[in-house]
Amino acid sequence: MPTGYDIRLIAPSGYPHAPEAMQRGIARLEAAGHRVDGKEVLDRRVLRFAGTDEQRAADINGLADPARPLPGIALAVRGGYGAHPLLPLLDYERLGTRLRDGTVALVGHSDFTAVQCALFAKAGIVTYGGPMLGADFGAQELDSLTWDHFWRTMASEDGEAAWATDTAADLALDGPLWGGNLAMLASLVGSPYFPRIEGGLLFVEDVAESPYRVERMLYHLLHAGVLGAQHALLVGDFTGYRTAAYDNGYDLDTALDRIAAAAGIPVIRGLPFGHGPAKFTLPFGVPARLVVAGGKATLRFSGHPRPKTP
Amino acid sequence: MPTGYDIRLIAPSGYPHAPEAMQRGIARLEAAGHRVDGKEVLDRRVLRFAGTDEQRAADINGLADPARPLPGIALAVRGGYGAHPLLPLLDYERLGTRLRDGTVALVGHSDFTAVQCALFAKAGIVTYGGPMLGADFGAQELDSLTWDHFWRTMASEDGEAAWATDTAADLALDGPLWGGNLAMLASLVGSPYFPRIEGGLLFVEDVAESPYRVERMLYHLLHAGVLGAQHALLVGDFTGYRTAAYDNGYDLDTALDRIAAAAGIPVIRGLPFGHGPAKFTLPFGVPARLVVAGGKATLRFSGHPRPKTP
Repeated sequence: MPTGYDIRLIAPSGYPHAPEAMQRGIARLEAAGHRVDGKEVLDRRVLRFAGTDEQRAADINGLADPARPLPGIALAVRGGYGAHPLLPLLDYERLGTRLRDGTVALVGHSDFTAVQCALFAKAGIVTYGGPMLGADFGAQELDSLTWDHFWRTMASEDGEAAWATDTAADLALDGPLWGGNLAMLASLVGSPYFPRIEGGLLFVEDVAESPYRVERMLYHLLHAGVLGAQHALLVGDFTGYRTAAYDNGYDLDTALDRIAAAAGIPVIRGLPFGHGPAKFTLPFGVPARLVVAGGKATLRFSGHPRPKTP
Repeated sequence: MPTGYDIRLIAPSGYPHAPEAMQRGIARLEAAGHRVDGKEVLDRRVLRFAGTDEQRAADINGLADPARPLPGIALAVRGGYGAHPLLPLLDYERLGTRLRDGTVALVGHSDFTAVQCALFAKAGIVTYGGPMLGADFGAQELDSLTWDHFWRTMASEDGEAAWATDTAADLALDGPLWGGNLAMLASLVGSPYFPRIEGGLLFVEDVAESPYRVERMLYHLLHAGVLGAQHALLVGDFTGYRTAAYDNGYDLDTALDRIAAAAGIPVIRGLPFGHGPAKFTLPFGVPARLVVAGGKATLRFSGHPRPKTP
């Protein structure tokens, strides 16, 4: 396990709703031998946001400030809502220049996906879908897959993520790995913050979205020419939603079957990524290879940012 | 009150969850002297849909069938979810040709907004955001604004809708009137089914979407270059959502204030349109003028479809 990373907290979205989880996350990271700064972002609270739009944008723009040393890891404290108003406020040009050498890992998921899309689309910056301070590092019980995979990915030149899948087909597909929260992806389609990636391996997850809404969002990506242009769709965790008697047998599997048929691309299920406790740390925008065989899916990727251990 | 219209039921979305409301709607329309056909669509039920994707698409494509007489009004029975899968199945060319003379009024709201967007974007067909069979014509208590305005709009060459608004500014703005359900509009951005309308008067409504989600959808329209290109945003009913202690004072008004500032266009509230009982019948895509003065907003429009009374 690598140690000694400089971790800077950033809060582009909602304010902490569980401050004790944030403190637990900090304690765990420090106990593992890392330095954590930017703790003051945890105290900001404006309406439902972790500070004003300008303050939250400054967390990210601060990475382009030559007067400040770069951290190894910029870690989102939580999701919620708040990334969208920031997107026009980010200094893409200077961020792109300063982060080009791939030694800063920006990490988060959920609402953070919007930031990831924008940084990649506007500046080619590769970030990570992965754990956040509160819900993951600060979870009452730390998930070992989440913890181990995060540090392994930070430290390894060759990334790998493998999981059991019910997909019977044998596949070997190459393409840029990208994705994240489905609602965030869908909410940027048609804007300059949405990356144009073809032939990719697109992963998606969401929370508290009914299957029909998941289908609608995937149809959005399909109708916009995004989904059908990918080599595969990787289905992460979809959690916390309700179905109703009205659904009449329609469920998430139905929705995914319908989308697979409409898009005509392989849909691989079971990826540990999303709002569940176990999640891989997955780079956004690097070359990857997906191999599916014998009920097992394996992603291999390279070229992901790797922070220097000081 | 005009009478004697041929009304054909169409069911592009969910199956009836309240069959008695559908029967009440039919009874009211028939009692008012109209003929209602297509009642068989009420009996279709596949998963959560009013029939297969092909059946539901055929309801609309049937309007392009030269072997069938055209109705005066094609009335959606309800919303729900189901329009998106149909959009690639519609015969835009033949529909455009057959409906060009503006004597068929396609009417609905909610999920139906997706059909309206597509018909306008792909074929220039003007439809109506307005009442549906179940929730409106079949409501336990018929809303008099909804009923009166619908028939008045069907019968009048000059359309008008006026309401009280808290907007203090005096405004007179011209542009195409368009809009509908916000989630449906947002879910088509970047696709060929989303109309390119500039300088318009855009109206939006939604149900069961928290204010932060409404803000996110409006940011989507803004980031995609849609919202800022309009002359005004008209805010209809936003109903059935919950706020939480976490919102910390953030509410729908806050969201709308933030969007008004970000988009730099007038945001006019109070339009009776949406999932509440009182709704205007508003054409999608015709020239209109909005006048706001003395706490009153007035929309005037022309060129909307007007069914022939046989």
